[in-house]
Amino acid sequence: MSQSPIDVLCIGNAIVDVIARVEDSFVARHGLVKGSMNLIDEARAESLYADMGQAIEVSGGSAGNTAAGVASFGGKAAYFGKVKADQLGVIYRHDMRSQGVKFESIAATEGPATARSFILVTPEGERTMNTYLGACVNLTTADIDEQTVGDAAVTYMEGYLWDRPEAKEAFKLAAKMSHAQKRRTSITLSDSFCVERHRDSFLDLIRNGIDIVFANESEIKSLYKTQSFDGALQAIRKDCAIAVLTRSEHGCVVVKGDETHALPAFPVAKVVDVTGAGDLFAAGFLFGFTRQMPLPACAQLGALAASEVISHIGARPEVKLNAHARAVGLL
Amino acid sequence: MSQSPIDVLCIGNAIVDVIARVEDSFVARHGLVKGSMNLIDEARAESLYADMGQAIEVSGGSAGNTAAGVASFGGKAAYFGKVKADQLGVIYRHDMRSQGVKFESIAATEGPATARSFILVTPEGERTMNTYLGACVNLTTADIDEQTVGDAAVTYMEGYLWDRPEAKEAFKLAAKMSHAQKRRTSITLSDSFCVERHRDSFLDLIRNGIDIVFANESEIKSLYKTQSFDGALQAIRKDCAIAVLTRSEHGCVVVKGDETHALPAFPVAKVVDVTGAGDLFAAGFLFGFTRQMPLPACAQLGALAASEVISHIGARPEVKLNAHARAVGLL
Repeated sequence: MSQSPIDVLCIGNAIVDVIARVEDSFVARHGLVKGSMNLIDEARAESLYADMGQAIEVSGGSAGNTAAGVASFGGKAAYFGKVKADQLGVIYRHDMRSQGVKFESIAATEGPATARSFILVTPEGERTMNTYLGACVNLTTADIDEQTVGDAAVTYMEGYLWDRPEAKEAFKLAAKMSHAQKRRTSITLSDSFCVERHRDSFLDLIRNGIDIVFANESEIKSLYKTQSFDGALQAIRKDCAIAVLTRSEHGCVVVKGDETHALPAFPVAKVVDVTGAGDLFAAGFLFGFTRQMPLPACAQLGALAASEVISHIGARPEVKLNAHARAVGLL
Repeated sequence: MSQSPIDVLCIGNAIVDVIARVEDSFVARHGLVKGSMNLIDEARAESLYADMGQAIEVSGGSAGNTAAGVASFGGKAAYFGKVKADQLGVIYRHDMRSQGVKFESIAATEGPATARSFILVTPEGERTMNTYLGACVNLTTADIDEQTVGDAAVTYMEGYLWDRPEAKEAFKLAAKMSHAQKRRTSITLSDSFCVERHRDSFLDLIRNGIDIVFANESEIKSLYKTQSFDGALQAIRKDCAIAVLTRSEHGCVVVKGDETHALPAFPVAKVVDVTGAGDLFAAGFLFGFTRQMPLPACAQLGALAASEVISHIGARPEVKLNAHARAVGLL
């Protein structure tokens, strides 16, 4: 990989997380499947919020969390995502830039408000997400800045973008621009229901335009319509240069051609909120990758970052991950 | 005390806390005194925010935290405070009502935005506050609903209100209305610098219109311009029916006429963020007080609530305090 002005460019839905602790009964009463991500309209957003308890607001969004994580490791990160020019949009931009993430996407001056995801955290730390996309609907190919994509060693995108045709086009354009500059592309499959909705076109993209795929166990099984993790692992090995498969407390498996690396999870005293675990895993992995570290070392950085983010409320690191990784001997 | 439809009515500045962890050097670089509360204008708010790291947003405001705490104990709480009709104002109202706090103050439709306090949390858990009052400047006597004040067993106000003449008038009016219905009035001195600014008129108010005073060690010493905690304690004994003096990890002293009750602090595994400690102490104490509990028992509830809120980021309880108090045998 050639030297690059940006290590990782992340593209995703710019969302402010509205996080509240709830009992299992709340999730059931609203007809939600625990652990899922649901897209909701404004009316549903309002009724859910009215029934939710006191919440905290934290900038989130899957790829946004990854960008913040890469920056926290000391990497050069950039972000494309759409907010509105409202108070939550100002907060979102502040939180990105204050981490050192380059974030120049122009805020929408009309249309829906900055996106929110109502995140219900049940007692065991599991999260159920209900996302109102709001201003994210304005992210289009016009927001894909060719210079920035060309400058980035890796362009990383969240599968959630696939839910809107305009964002999907933006996503494909970015992948094309990245490869034109001999850079690498990467996606996370985001959510098993998201895979369910877009299985064929995800597979097509992975086979033809993506170098590194991130997926958790249920996502990769869904992609290949199999109940066997090993079956899915063997399938992705043929379809993609590098696949990083995360398995919560069971660690992860990285496959690259004939290579297979299984790594343990990093121990956590208490799981408080799993939101952002996958996003931060990707941040650690990609940071190591852009530093030309061996794949197992990349995975260890990912596991470390994931362990930090699940030990507190919110999907962004509360400590400087670079110092944290140095303290435990990973950097 | 007669039966009342509301246990505690809290009146204060309705503020959204914007909380970030910083190093000591950040506080020094901005010329701030650690542990202080500073009133800042919009320009200063913007420059401070631009230099701050990624933050979380949580509804706060001293008396607002107390109202949320009273409700969390299962008490009937109400709140008077001014937000603007903007996104942060909607969040603030949601967070109040979702706790069961009655909050009917009308949102301002023009003028400055909903207030924010930029709270810098240094590594040991101390907090330095920088408050932009924004829409709070619109709280006036017009917001003091006589019916609600008359319905409340205790009307509790934050000393911070004293910083604006219009709010001070609102404060005095509420005290008068409360006593007209044979209800009790209470204030917190809020901050030693606040006491410094308003010493004489605070003393006048305490001697003539307040039944229960809450103060920490530096506030009560400032009130009586003394270095001696015991000297201040003996002085307040003569000036007010009940004084509740909190001393961080050294517990508290409650004085009422000739009675003196010293109670220990509740042990905390790790102090994460002291924001809200005093506010939640007041919530616990006042909840017990409106339940006719003995003063030492009221203080223990206060200590318990304070211990909960300093064990995490943010100034509102993360657990139901009623259940928490039952679990440790205090209710």
